[in-house]
This record gives sequence, C-alpha cells and structure tokens, in this order.
Amino acid sequence: SMEGLKKNRGGGSFGTHFSYNSCADAVRSGRMVVVRAEGINPEIRKTEDKVVDSVIVTELAKPLTAYCRCWRSATFPLCDGSHVKHNKATGDNVGPLLLKKQ
Amino acid sequence: SMEGLKKNRGGGSFGTHFSYNSCADAVRSGRMVVVRAEGINPEIRKTEDKVVDSVIVTELAKPLTAYCRCWRSATFPLCDGSHVKHNKATGDNVGPLLLKKQ
Ligand code: FES
Ligand code: FES
Repeated sequence: SMEGLKKNRGGGSFGTHFSYNSCADAVRSGRMVVVRAEGINPEIRKTEDKVVDSVIVTELAKPLTAYCRCWRSATFPLCDGSHVKHNKATGDNVGPLLLKKQ
Repeated sequence: SMEGLKKNRGGGSFGTHFSYNSCADAVRSGRMVVVRAEGINPEIRKTEDKVVDSVIVTELAKPLTAYCRCWRSATFPLCDGSHVKHNKATGDNVGPLLLKKQ
C-alpha cells in the first residue's frame, strides 16, 4: 500500500508475494501504478508559469463574446466550442464564460 | 497492448504469459490498468450538463474582477486564488481571466 511505501522509502513490499529494492523497481515491474493529481491544461502556453489573460471590457467588439474555461480551445483565451468534444470524451460538464455588453 | 485489446474485444492476451476472457478480468487481475481521459471539473454544479456563466460587463462593480478558469474556486465563477494550490499540486500553469473596466 502507499502507506507502507511512505514508511519505507528505501524499498517496498506489496502484499505477501513481492518485494522491491526501490519504488521505481516496483513501478517498472508493473506491480505498482503511481496515480498523480492531474493538471487541466495539457498544451496552452506551457512556457508560462501561470496563464492569466485580461479583457478591457470597454473594448469588446461584439454584444456577446465567449471565453474558454476548458483549456482545449484552438483560439484560447476565446472559446471555439472545443468544450463540447471535451465533455463528450470525459463526461465532464465545463463551458465558457460569456461576456455580454448588455 | 491496447492495440491488441482493440482488435480482440472478446478477451485479451498480454505479453506471452497471461490471457483473459474479458477486459474486465484483465483489469481485475491487476495486469492491466485502464487510463481514461480526465474531466477538469471535479465538483462544480455537477447537476448541470454544461456550466456556462454570463457577465454583463456594464454591471461590473470593481475596476478589476478575476474569473476562475481552474474549476477549483470556492467562489466560482469568481477566482479565489485556488489556482495557486492546484498548480503547485499538479505542475499545472492555469490562471484566471481578468476583467478590467479600463
Ligand atoms: S472551447 Fe473551452 S470553454 Fe469553449
Ligand atoms: S481560483 Fe480558479 S483561476 Fe483562480
């Protein structure tokens, strides 16, 4: 278990049948899988530490502009509808932020 | 491999040593792990098919308002700074959309 793993950093014993000299060996053996908390932005501006965008709302051209919150848009920070495919593929329920002039 | 799995939906044979009557059996055995595309919103308004929010920009109270794009804010759709913890925990680089009146 991960509990045992934490207590025994130099190696590990999983169940009664297997022991390893290191966590990496256990993972390599295929007997252990490490599950990590996942990021939500796979691709956009990965050279930036934090992707922050600004909108000067008085400069909005159209009555309604959709901004992406799914991190899958090819026109990020604008929404291009890619959230639909993302939601279908993953069972997620994300959608854009709509900026309205009136 | 997943290639073999796709060609042989009724069962599977992984490497030379193991064979299974079904994919579910292979997963249960611990010899196979299914990795799924992940959603990005774990908690917010999960009863809605798609979470869309609207801002009437003429009604913004403050010179600058930050809107959440990490789906971790306790004040969603507003940003409460939770993207910082999310980025640290996952290595991600997401941040808010800033709406500015000037
Ligand atoms: S494309 Fe990302 S919210 Fe629409
Ligand atoms: S809390 Fe989500 S972007 Fe800031």
